[in-house]
Amino acid sequence: MNIAGKHFRTIWLHPQDTRIVQIIDQRQLPHEFVIEDLTSVDEVARAIKEMHVRGAGLIGAAAGYGMAIAAYHAPRDSEAAFMAALQADGEKLKATRPTAVNLAWAVERQLTTIGAAPGIEAKIQTAAATAQAIADEDADYCRRIGQHGVSLIEAVSQNKNGDVVNILTHCNAGWLAFVDYGSATAPIYAAHDAGIAVHVWVDETRPRNQGARLTAWELGQHGVPHTVIADNVGGHLMQHGLVDMVIVGTDRTTYTGDVGNKIGTYLKALAAFDNGIPFYTALPSSSFDWQMRDGVREIPIEQRDATEVRQIRGLHEGTIKGVLLTPPDSPAANYAFDVTPARLVTVLITERGICAASEEGVLGLFPEKRFANDE
Amino acid sequence: MNIAGKHFRTIWLHPQDTRIVQIIDQRQLPHEFVIEDLTSVDEVARAIKEMHVRGAGLIGAAAGYGMAIAAYHAPRDSEAAFMAALQADGEKLKATRPTAVNLAWAVERQLTTIGAAPGIEAKIQTAAATAQAIADEDADYCRRIGQHGVSLIEAVSQNKNGDVVNILTHCNAGWLAFVDYGSATAPIYAAHDAGIAVHVWVDETRPRNQGARLTAWELGQHGVPHTVIADNVGGHLMQHGLVDMVIVGTDRTTYTGDVGNKIGTYLKALAAFDNGIPFYTALPSSSFDWQMRDGVREIPIEQRDATEVRQIRGLHEGTIKGVLLTPPDSPAANYAFDVTPARLVTVLITERGICAASEEGVLGLFPEKRFANDE
Repeated sequence: MNIAGKHFRTIWLHPQDTRIVQIIDQRQLPHEFVIEDLTSVDEVARAIKEMHVRGAGLIGAAAGYGMAIAAYHAPRDSEAAFMAALQADGEKLKATRPTAVNLAWAVERQLTTIGAAPGIEAKIQTAAATAQAIADEDADYCRRIGQHGVSLIEAVSQNKNGDVVNILTHCNAGWLAFVDYGSATAPIYAAHDAGIAVHVWVDETRPRNQGARLTAWELGQHGVPHTVIADNVGGHLMQHGLVDMVIVGTDRTTYTGDVGNKIGTYLKALAAFDNGIPFYTALPSSSFDWQMRDGVREIPIEQRDATEVRQIRGLHEGTIKGVLLTPPDSPAANYAFDVTPARLVTVLITERGICAASEEGVLGLFPEKRFANDE
Repeated sequence: MNIAGKHFRTIWLHPQDTRIVQIIDQRQLPHEFVIEDLTSVDEVARAIKEMHVRGAGLIGAAAGYGMAIAAYHAPRDSEAAFMAALQADGEKLKATRPTAVNLAWAVERQLTTIGAAPGIEAKIQTAAATAQAIADEDADYCRRIGQHGVSLIEAVSQNKNGDVVNILTHCNAGWLAFVDYGSATAPIYAAHDAGIAVHVWVDETRPRNQGARLTAWELGQHGVPHTVIADNVGGHLMQHGLVDMVIVGTDRTTYTGDVGNKIGTYLKALAAFDNGIPFYTALPSSSFDWQMRDGVREIPIEQRDATEVRQIRGLHEGTIKGVLLTPPDSPAANYAFDVTPARLVTVLITERGICAASEEGVLGLFPEKRFANDE
């Protein structure tokens, strides 16, 4: 989408040297706009682990590009040595973040495709082409999610006689979390670009404030009206008719419709359900987990460093500083995700269309996956 | 309760000079422990207005002491001049936080009691005695809330064979919000002091972080095990059996049991209900609204300055600094309270005992209020 009127993706090959990947270092947003060069698998792994890049789709794309870089630098003595090095680099990339399913998916896709290519030179070319394909597909899937989801916004807009449609979102499932468009934001951008009046309530999304830092920034850069709120506020807004729908993304959704997403999503789903407000999850099919049945029990929940709760970073007199929020000796816990049971999810919005958050609904849209589960 | 092993209240008369009131300046907590002397009505008024002191019970006590200071300094030429000065000072105190019901209540109680005392010397003595009585009553009511509420914790402890009882609380309804003990914290302190193993999940409570700053600090000082969490986390903890009960305070509870409290309370009540976990509200009877029936519709919700969402204060290299969290041009909204419908509240814990969160339950415990509502 646009940054100050100019189109960007979140990740791309260096225009002068395709062995280098360029990313927006999202840790500095919204205060500084920094483009970073990644030249090795270790740098890509660190960028994922330390969240220079984050978000399900973008992590997958970064892993894809990471494998392309790995192929450039792998030993060329023999195919076996080449593939062994790629295998090891793939493990390194997969070990960076546990919850997002896209990471392992992108690495496996690369290993399979590269493995099938005849000869080392072809493997290197294939790795680069597959990385680009993963990124392009991600953008295309998100664009299609927007096309399907915009109908839901349009219907509310018509019901309200063109009055502003108020949409609440949590965390950043925006284009910054993917390669372009975003998942939760794709229908919002599509509506805004089509001239439908929308306004977004942006949950700040503690502890890492991806809403206040990233979603607010990308909506602002693209010109979408929005208001930042504390994560505590959504329930009150819903009780008072100030939210028409909730749209969130997901890090992993079971094929039965349980939605793993940023911590706090479950609370907003409960509030939406309690107030009869639709709760939508937008996702490319790469975010489905085709094995897990029970999301609450099975989706692994990453626990991150408690420092992220105890301290926060922000802009003070022109420079980014961290400040301590708690007593120096108070412990903190930092669960990064939660799971919203399918019963609270109105529908899922995918690149193939809209479906019920249920095994029947999901497999109806992705019938080829029935066999995968029968095995 | 205790600070570093020594007992404190939140407000007290200077031991060497009873014309001076001393408070803990809560704006600096948890980073600095500052005791402030208040020597005039203007200083007391500023301390309330600028939130050196906050919390319903403590604001009432501060207003009571403020009137005692007013009596010391009022002109002694005639009783009429004396009372006129007190009346003016009372108005000044009431104007500081016009929505806080305890403030007006304490000022009116002082004016009535002082007015009834014979002669200026007796009036001055009465003002001091009434201030002390208001503070002592506040502490006594909270102590009794603790005595009633501890049974609920004790029962869980026994069910768990003495294993740690995990209690989640939101905002600060601790002793820092009252004169001593607190409302939500009173049962927790009573349990801890009785040797029952408890652990408190402390919601940080954005945007003003009263949980991370004040609740974490007071629990830590008194030695109660606790963990600070982002407001988003409670639902996940409840889904996974890590919360045995929720206890919160209230700014205003209708006589029908609807609980007005810090923004975000409603979301925790929904999660508790969804997971079959008891949700308790602890309150002295002064926090009941005996007129309102429908809390969600009728309790007025204060909207505060959006700066509180966009910026946050914390400790950086030894000094307290404010940092910007959002893009400089992103708007923010700051609703300070929400209302939890009675259907989500398991019971209320008051100084008279425990009752259902319903008209029948509340008026059963406070039968003298039946007449007030019939009028």
